[in-house]
Amino acid sequence: MQKQVEYADAIKTKYPEQIVIAIAKDRNGKFNPITLGWTMIVSGEPPMMAIAVAKTHYSVEAITFSECFTIAYPSSEMADAALFFGSRSGREVDKFAEFKCETVPAAQIDSVLLADAVANFECTLEQHMHAGDHVIFVGNVVAAHVNAEAKKRLYTVGPGHKLGPASK
Amino acid sequence: MQKQVEYADAIKTKYPEQIVIAIAKDRNGKFNPITLGWTMIVSGEPPMMAIAVAKTHYSVEAITFSECFTIAYPSSEMADAALFFGSRSGREVDKFAEFKCETVPAAQIDSVLLADAVANFECTLEQHMHAGDHVIFVGNVVAAHVNAEAKKRLYTVGPGHKLGPASK
Repeated sequence: MQKQVEYADAIKTKYPEQIVIAIAKDRNGKFNPITLGWTMIVSGEPPMMAIAVAKTHYSVEAITFSECFTIAYPSSEMADAALFFGSRSGREVDKFAEFKCETVPAAQIDSVLLADAVANFECTLEQHMHAGDHVIFVGNVVAAHVNAEAKKRLYTVGPGHKLGPASK
Repeated sequence: MQKQVEYADAIKTKYPEQIVIAIAKDRNGKFNPITLGWTMIVSGEPPMMAIAVAKTHYSVEAITFSECFTIAYPSSEMADAALFFGSRSGREVDKFAEFKCETVPAAQIDSVLLADAVANFECTLEQHMHAGDHVIFVGNVVAAHVNAEAKKRLYTVGPGHKLGPASK
């Protein structure tokens, strides 16, 4: 039985929600990571992925500047990095300088991968659209990488940025 | 340590992947549900959600015709319905006539809600864009509903349409 409620209450049923970390180089040459929950695959052939980034976030500038970005699936061991990258702004800090998180160069784009992530997808910017208070960026996946070790993805498992694996 | 692999292999690390059932009325007045894994929230204020639907799927016609759609979060008990709605085409069958799944009228749009879902979001079509082999539909959430009983969302937990709750 359904009961009508405010959107803010209904959306609390969304968990677990996947987490990705998107990385793009800014105009100063700094690689800037941002943690995002709003992402989806959008095409199978060719493979394409989308992310929604708040209009006010520095990553909008960085992705627009470099026209490419990495989508990393952080592992369940990377909750602290995900929280840091999601709570600070690249306008004010160099996140990779402030929070130790090993990166390796991407193969096909001018970006970096997260060495300890479950997987990394290299995307070239295909298009973007505005939607409410966010910008949707759609990328072509031009290279993909996985961790040599089997790892679990990181999810937001409940309100208040509670992070962990989706299944215990 | 990352190793480069084919996209088809890397994307196998995505699980658990959320599931939604999108519902739209076709030009004959039939409500057509489709099961989708490719969906994301795209705006907080105003609330907006997006879905990616394969270009060849009947739901593209139905959503384009009715300019509104429901996004339902099926519960972990609704795996059979999700599999049925995701594997048959509305061009050939009336899915709600063939598979028993209780619906109730939406409050603000010309669509229906799934009575046993975790939550239902009523969306008016805001915009769409083509991306590879899919169409991205962005909707404004104009009403939201939750189940009076606490239920878990349904996820694809592994390849081959293996469905279940994300956490046991």
